[in-house]
Amino acid sequence: MKLQEIAERLGGTVEGDGSLEITGVNGMELAEQGQITFLADKKFKDQLKTCNASAVIVPKKMETDKAQVVHPAPALAFAKLLAEYHPEPRPQPGVDESACIADGVQLGKDVTISPFVALGKDVVIGDNTVLHPGVVVHEGCRIGNNSTLFANVTVYRNSVIGNHVVLHAGVVIGADGFGYTPDEKGRHVKINQVGRVVIEDHVEVGANTCIDRAAFGETVVGEGTKIDNLVQIAHNCDIGPHSIIVSQAGIAGTCKLGHHVVLAGQVGLADHVTIGDQVIVAAQAGVNKDLSEPGFYGGSPAISAMTWKRYTTLLPKLPELSRKIQELEKRLNAIEKE
Amino acid sequence: MKLQEIAERLGGTVEGDGSLEITGVNGMELAEQGQITFLADKKFKDQLKTCNASAVIVPKKMETDKAQVVHPAPALAFAKLLAEYHPEPRPQPGVDESACIADGVQLGKDVTISPFVALGKDVVIGDNTVLHPGVVVHEGCRIGNNSTLFANVTVYRNSVIGNHVVLHAGVVIGADGFGYTPDEKGRHVKINQVGRVVIEDHVEVGANTCIDRAAFGETVVGEGTKIDNLVQIAHNCDIGPHSIIVSQAGIAGTCKLGHHVVLAGQVGLADHVTIGDQVIVAAQAGVNKDLSEPGFYGGSPAISAMTWKRYTTLLPKLPELSRKIQELEKRLNAIEKE
Amino acid sequence: MKLQEIAERLGGTVEGDGSLEITGVNGMELAEQGQITFLADKKFKDQLKTCNASAVIVPKKMETDKAQVVHPAPALAFAKLLAEYHPEPRPQPGVDESACIADGVQLGKDVTISPFVALGKDVVIGDNTVLHPGVVVHEGCRIGNNSTLFANVTVYRNSVIGNHVVLHAGVVIGADGFGYTPDEKGRHVKINQVGRVVIEDHVEVGANTCIDRAAFGETVVGEGTKIDNLVQIAHNCDIGPHSIIVSQAGIAGTCKLGHHVVLAGQVGLADHVTIGDQVIVAAQAGVNKDLSEPGFYGGSPAISAMTWKRYTTLLPKLPELSRKIQELEKRLNAIEKE
Repeated sequence: MKLQEIAERLGGTVEGDGSLEITGVNGMELAEQGQITFLADKKFKDQLKTCNASAVIVPKKMETDKAQVVHPAPALAFAKLLAEYHPEPRPQPGVDESACIADGVQLGKDVTISPFVALGKDVVIGDNTVLHPGVVVHEGCRIGNNSTLFANVTVYRNSVIGNHVVLHAGVVIGADGFGYTPDEKGRHVKINQVGRVVIEDHVEVGANTCIDRAAFGETVVGEGTKIDNLVQIAHNCDIGPHSIIVSQAGIAGTCKLGHHVVLAGQVGLADHVTIGDQVIVAAQAGVNKDLSEPGFYGGSPAISAMTWKRYTTLLPKLPELSRKIQELEKRLNAIEKE
Repeated sequence: MKLQEIAERLGGTVEGDGSLEITGVNGMELAEQGQITFLADKKFKDQLKTCNASAVIVPKKMETDKAQVVHPAPALAFAKLLAEYHPEPRPQPGVDESACIADGVQLGKDVTISPFVALGKDVVIGDNTVLHPGVVVHEGCRIGNNSTLFANVTVYRNSVIGNHVVLHAGVVIGADGFGYTPDEKGRHVKINQVGRVVIEDHVEVGANTCIDRAAFGETVVGEGTKIDNLVQIAHNCDIGPHSIIVSQAGIAGTCKLGHHVVLAGQVGLADHVTIGDQVIVAAQAGVNKDLSEPGFYGGSPAISAMTWKRYTTLLPKLPELSRKIQELEKRLNAIEKE
Repeated sequence: MKLQEIAERLGGTVEGDGSLEITGVNGMELAEQGQITFLADKKFKDQLKTCNASAVIVPKKMETDKAQVVHPAPALAFAKLLAEYHPEPRPQPGVDESACIADGVQLGKDVTISPFVALGKDVVIGDNTVLHPGVVVHEGCRIGNNSTLFANVTVYRNSVIGNHVVLHAGVVIGADGFGYTPDEKGRHVKINQVGRVVIEDHVEVGANTCIDRAAFGETVVGEGTKIDNLVQIAHNCDIGPHSIIVSQAGIAGTCKLGHHVVLAGQVGLADHVTIGDQVIVAAQAGVNKDLSEPGFYGGSPAISAMTWKRYTTLLPKLPELSRKIQELEKRLNAIEKE
């Protein structure tokens, strides 16, 4: 594509040579001549000097020898352009003869059912959906249109998975919630988990993440929420839409998250915690109480990030503070003696 | 079942209309008319008012318009009733023709060997055991009766798995322990891990959890212990019976846990740590020393939970304490000048 | 083997009866008569008294009734001997007829392609490499010689895996990095991840670990690095050679690690962090800034381990310090009144 064409598609304007042929899309450090890159913020503009790209998407026109596409949201424009230059490859539609398909399964148009896929009774798979090798979908599950289940994903019975959902390799949807009650001899007796998991549209779930089904009712992941690798979501959680849950975060049972929540890496939520809309929780924080106001929280137990950062800075000074207290005490003793 | 019949089966007594037909079992929030629910503790009895269930299992007779089954352990009674109304579904016995079964494999009565299951040489599978699609059991493993291995579980060679064991999808049993020793050039040389894993009866292991085999000897998970998703149990651990290990906890090599231990979510144990019977460790704690006395521990490094909670409450006040020390110093300076 | 022969192979010297027939290799606690064990350090020599081994590899000749092999690096010598007595079992070479092999796949000499393995277009597998059942390797991947992929491993497209690499069961190599950018309505728009993963020679990756492919360019794991179970390595990380990453550690995007780095269990690294050569980070630490000097770090946020340990010791004394400050204040008030 020529730069002018790119600008028109993205809804931006060209500064410089619009007839430039753009051969590829790349990150700033790796971009080569002929390629286009982007600058998310003017403060990084020094990096442009050592960048070999021929064109750059920028938020405002700036001083540079590169051709520019001016666009109010450069990262978003770049993401769209990238998807055109590098669309996610899609295997051919078709049902591999090795796949094991139980009675009552309904397959949509142009599905891809790869080798060694097992579909249980009455499973429904929507149009254009791709199941990579080794995917196992147990009976009664419904999967929407245009979704992709990567290799070796397991979906337990009666799970509902929406449209445009991506489940990465090794994901486990709908395994039993962790529910037991002790008997008179202290043995843990299983509380059968009879609910299900519902994954709404446009959700993406990272590799080897686990989302347990509800004891009763539903564990829900709301529309457009993105979940990273190795995350744990326990039974009966209700994860709101458009949230971000980073790798190795763990959410205990019956937690409720609002929309546009961000849980950073390795965050832990105790059970029955409610997190309000637009709450951001810093990495490794441990949340044991509701966080209802939008804002940034951190620490374990999690509190306002400002307070958390303030005390954190002082922790290395604890030995000094302790010494000072001893010293003050001595001096006071001396004064009192007088 | 009629309420009277339910009470008799559970060993409880009816208060109210014993002829009531109970159509289902449900949690308090979701229960509908005709269904039975339970009240674990009298302190939650206000929740009964908004609950639509027709009957409730209670620890003691109480004021309510619902029919009651009085039982000393309502949660336990409920769990048993739930298992009758919603038994875990079981696939038909039989060996799928796609399964790959090596020489010397012994299959018990009424086993289910699903599509794409691979069994190595001399594997022994007990009666009524179910292997879901994609399960791989390497040579020399023995699996007991009435056990269930969900989809895409991998069991490395020579592992021993008891009766009534449940391994959820993606579990890896018996992978190599993490053992290396540096050579003269600082390269990590593998210490071959020649031991095995032993999982005793009635153990349940959550999705994508990993239990490594021993360097020598055995990694053991004791009878009735329940392990959640994404847990790491390293080589040579000896996990006692009837313990609870919550999601994302990590147990380093050669740890020893007693019976009825509880490790909450994201807990970490350093290697060679011994945890006594009935020790409870709070979420995200880091245990680097033996905890021998029964009780509740928390923090990183983990100490008595009471002490941990006390200092934790003071952390946000550190800036104030620091300021106070400065102020006291100034005032002392002033006095000393005089 | 006779003890004399063992000593010669290992490059050590015999003290005692070199004609002793050594029937096996074992850890000190489990060793039986006729077997050989090792003593890593003289300080553990008391343990020799209760050990039943007939011979022991020691760093220096010592007082014991056991026959000795004196070797400057007993653990290393032991590891080598162990590999001779207990070589890693290797399945027969051959391609199982159930395997699904796409066009353009190149298989080296003596490969083992197990049942239910799926190889995408143009995959290259080197000599002597073993793919266990359920392994899925997507199109364009190259895997070197003498490598082993255990059951149910998934390798996404275009990944490059070296020689003598071991990927344990459930590992996911090359899943999409976690990259999104918000649109005008606050929906997360995917940034297609068009890079790849490169795993160099002699790397071992533990069960269910995830290594994401780069947004652009490469995520790299350097030669000889050993990674434990359930580790997260995000897109564009560059992990140096001969490093150790212990279970459940999580490394966010675009981190750079030097050589001989050690990250202990459950460590978290924020994105864009650089860790210098020979840095050791203690378990559960959270690293949010570069650590450039070799040394030992801990805490969250991570600092010098010495400082971290010092303040950690004082944490339980915070309530006492707080009380003391109050007391000092009162005494000062009294003095000032005078």
